[in-house]
Amino acid sequence: MTQADPKAGFIDQVSWNSDGLVPAIAQDFKTGRILMMAWMNRESLAITASEGYAVYWSRSRGKLWRKGESSGHLQQVREIRLDCDGDTILLLVEQQGGIACHTGRSSCFYRVLQGGEWSTTQPVIKSPETIYESPEL
Amino acid sequence: MTQADPKAGFIDQVSWNSDGLVPAIAQDFKTGRILMMAWMNRESLAITASEGYAVYWSRSRGKLWRKGESSGHLQQVREIRLDCDGDTILLLVEQQGGIACHTGRSSCFYRVLQGGEWSTTQPVIKSPETIYESPEL
Repeated sequence: MTQADPKAGFIDQVSWNSDGLVPAIAQDFKTGRILMMAWMNRESLAITASEGYAVYWSRSRGKLWRKGESSGHLQQVREIRLDCDGDTILLLVEQQGGIACHTGRSSCFYRVLQGGEWSTTQPVIKSPETIYESPEL
Repeated sequence: MTQADPKAGFIDQVSWNSDGLVPAIAQDFKTGRILMMAWMNRESLAITASEGYAVYWSRSRGKLWRKGESSGHLQQVREIRLDCDGDTILLLVEQQGGIACHTGRSSCFYRVLQGGEWSTTQPVIKSPETIYESPEL
């Protein structure tokens, strides 16, 4: 593990919101599929940049969220991008296990608006019980 | 213009934040490129769904933002997606003019982290002065 410096210049150039966070979009590096959207604080961006695996900030748990730490579905970061006004991060990642969503689907954006209703369009690849209760499998 | 109903069921199923907003990601339908991230409120989602062109909520201006109304760079919506926890929208769009960013670039995510610095990677296709001062061109 290399040393993450949350005071690095590139981190100061991000426009953190009043909670010290920015949205971070994860996109599959190979397929272009958008996998998920989560949040980052300074420390999570610093660690992500230094270690090369996506680390977010869990707002519900109030702590760093090393993506894949319980599921094994790590996101190896190939590119980190910043938007024009500096308040949104884009991660280009290789999604280990091909599953980004806690529901066991490849992407969290599996609902599409059709006829005024949200329809589920992606199959569950692996059940959440299998993912989270038997991480060694 | 068709009637937008901000009380429609699918809108109630979105987990709006305490400001009544959710992040909305725009992705190019053909190339998969992520174009921008903006915010939506109930009304902007209702109008987007009914009219078929992306309408966001401008937090800085405190009003609806019909994307492309001054630049001509409308986003024709091909799909509207919702993530697993219902708090992020994904729009699959056809970007008119091939320019999503107010800087005149195809995407807002034109800066990439390289060697600890944000490097600009995309050319300006059309200068902002040309886009915004002579919209009839």
